[in-house]
Amino acid sequence: MTQFNIEDHPHRRFNPLTNEWILVSPHRAKRPWQGQVEKASVEERPAYDPNCYLCAGNERIGGHKNPDYKGTFVFTNDFSALLTDTPDGGMDEGSLFQAKSESGICKVICFSENHALTVPEMAVEDIRGVVDVWCREFEELGSQELINYVQIFENKGSIMGCSNPHPHGQIWSSSSVPVEPEKESVTQKAYFDKTGRTLLGDYVAAELDKKERLVAENEHFVALVPYWAVWPFEAMIISKRAVQNILQLTDDERTALADIYKQLTVKYDNLFETSFAYSAGLHQAPTDGKDYPEWHLHMHFYPPLLRSATVKKFMVGYEMLATPQRDITAEQAARRLRELSDIHYKHQ
Amino acid sequence: MTQFNIEDHPHRRFNPLTNEWILVSPHRAKRPWQGQVEKASVEERPAYDPNCYLCAGNERIGGHKNPDYKGTFVFTNDFSALLTDTPDGGMDEGSLFQAKSESGICKVICFSENHALTVPEMAVEDIRGVVDVWCREFEELGSQELINYVQIFENKGSIMGCSNPHPHGQIWSSSSVPVEPEKESVTQKAYFDKTGRTLLGDYVAAELDKKERLVAENEHFVALVPYWAVWPFEAMIISKRAVQNILQLTDDERTALADIYKQLTVKYDNLFETSFAYSAGLHQAPTDGKDYPEWHLHMHFYPPLLRSATVKKFMVGYEMLATPQRDITAEQAARRLRELSDIHYKHQ
Ligand SMILES: O=P(O)(O)O[C@H]1O[C@H](CO)[C@@H](O)[C@H](O)[C@H]1O
Ligand SMILES: O=P(O)(O)O[C@H]1O[C@H](CO)[C@@H](O)[C@H](O)[C@H]1O
Repeated sequence: MTQFNIEDHPHRRFNPLTNEWILVSPHRAKRPWQGQVEKASVEERPAYDPNCYLCAGNERIGGHKNPDYKGTFVFTNDFSALLTDTPDGGMDEGSLFQAKSESGICKVICFSENHALTVPEMAVEDIRGVVDVWCREFEELGSQELINYVQIFENKGSIMGCSNPHPHGQIWSSSSVPVEPEKESVTQKAYFDKTGRTLLGDYVAAELDKKERLVAENEHFVALVPYWAVWPFEAMIISKRAVQNILQLTDDERTALADIYKQLTVKYDNLFETSFAYSAGLHQAPTDGKDYPEWHLHMHFYPPLLRSATVKKFMVGYEMLATPQRDITAEQAARRLRELSDIHYKHQ
Repeated sequence: MTQFNIEDHPHRRFNPLTNEWILVSPHRAKRPWQGQVEKASVEERPAYDPNCYLCAGNERIGGHKNPDYKGTFVFTNDFSALLTDTPDGGMDEGSLFQAKSESGICKVICFSENHALTVPEMAVEDIRGVVDVWCREFEELGSQELINYVQIFENKGSIMGCSNPHPHGQIWSSSSVPVEPEKESVTQKAYFDKTGRTLLGDYVAAELDKKERLVAENEHFVALVPYWAVWPFEAMIISKRAVQNILQLTDDERTALADIYKQLTVKYDNLFETSFAYSAGLHQAPTDGKDYPEWHLHMHFYPPLLRSATVKKFMVGYEMLATPQRDITAEQAARRLRELSDIHYKHQ
């Protein structure tokens, strides 16, 4: 009788951060694809686009004019999903109709004045500038009475709903802790209470030992495809030292975060020689003033491309109604990313 | 001071079926859209396509030849994500590396021999044929020792990862209960244990009373936009009588399910006068032979379009990393759908 083999046989894997399972069907990678193909992202952009509302000196939709900035530039989202002046209130009709007013502050961060760039093509010192803005904003927003969670993220590529190719990210900060960080709060706390160590500290140590899911590494950070990855080339950046949030990073660690962000995204672009779309974001402890020794800073990357610059994985049908499913294994994805050059394909 | 108003102010709503919150930002519907636009689905298809691997008489990729069927036709998926002969096994290294072998059977159901049709354009009696196949397959698969859950679903439209426009759905049945039905098992059981009634029975009664989220109704079923909807025009079909699975439906109820399936999807197509893409699927009790009095049969519809035939909602960035977010309220969406004609726009 054949023995179960995780590289070949359908199986479920457990995500200890969300406390949920995912389905892996490795044999399914051989399936031909006859469905929708995306536009490949190969366009060359000018360093300045007079029609871009994020370029320096241009007017935005709301009528505001961007300053003549160099490097980063932060402003309050002209179409914020959360506002500061929402009246308290809600609806509470038994357990079936519950609503609660929600407040917050949404910001946009331009990563560079150069419209043509993306993170993998930026210099590490310029990405370090972005990390510094994250720190400043996290501190400023997080210290406000109103704000108990600060979600920093980046949507890259039009197939990830990004409506402007100018390199930028967003911050949505809110009075309540969002669903995903809340799940991770619960699981990390349970682990910490049991072991006295952070879940991701132990996880990083095990992965550094096993090596098979590593993608990149520097002195202070690891980039890897998590054992429980759902998206084909999903990755996580995890700090080697357990810190609750980016404000606890040393100067060296901030630079190392910029460095690993570049390393990972260069490999992403090299995979299909295209500007690789993803949603990425930091997960950190809530900013309600309490201490969260169980929280371990990390960054998730959810990229949709599967087989080429034009064929993505669809999280539909079975994924929405039942269990998220992937074809290639996390180990195969990590191996492919690991073996790619560290030098961006445009500069090779 | 302004009073909190659920139609205007940002708020969270609670989904009692998944035990999770969602974020609603009604004021954000005014945001202009400059991002990716989809291809509108307006193509006219022939009733028979010699290149379609689902059309009657044609050869499939695996080399099998479809019979000369009329009505429905079911076969085992040539690229099944789950297989019957997977060896038992797994990985169990502490809480961080857990995997379990998974078995199952995946099938494809052609809804009609007519390549040009979709559910909203089919006659109710022909959709009833699809419901009968669901019942037969649910019974046959569910009675197998190996199978403890039967997930019936449909991906419609290329933007929902559907690789063939021929009207068809799928069944993925598995030895373990998938993540989403498992969440609903827990919440429905807790509600039933407390009240002696099904959660969705009480919910349907309340919505029939309030009326503001109703979309369509017949003697045995309701179609509505749930209070906690995430996708812009998300909907649920819920049986008025609490049944655990489709096998418990009477003959009349089976026809009523076909009827409401058509009613809802006709309204969907009429909304933007396009073939409206969605993933839809039935949620039912597990098939492990136990009794599940708390389980209440329903069908979810997750359609991505937001503003027009070409502008969809992206569940990215904040949604993936934090909390699912919607712009228009469930009430606004329901009102728009409710007010649309019951007659398909192509036949008006
Ligand atoms: O089985 P299909 O139609 O080839 O594939 C489609 O549905 C599956 C089940 O929802 C998904 O996993 C795939 O990503 C999607 O492309
Ligand atoms: O804020 P943007 O870039 O206009 O919008 C994009 O990101 C948001 C946050 O992830 C999503 O809610 C939107 O669906 C997406 O299109």
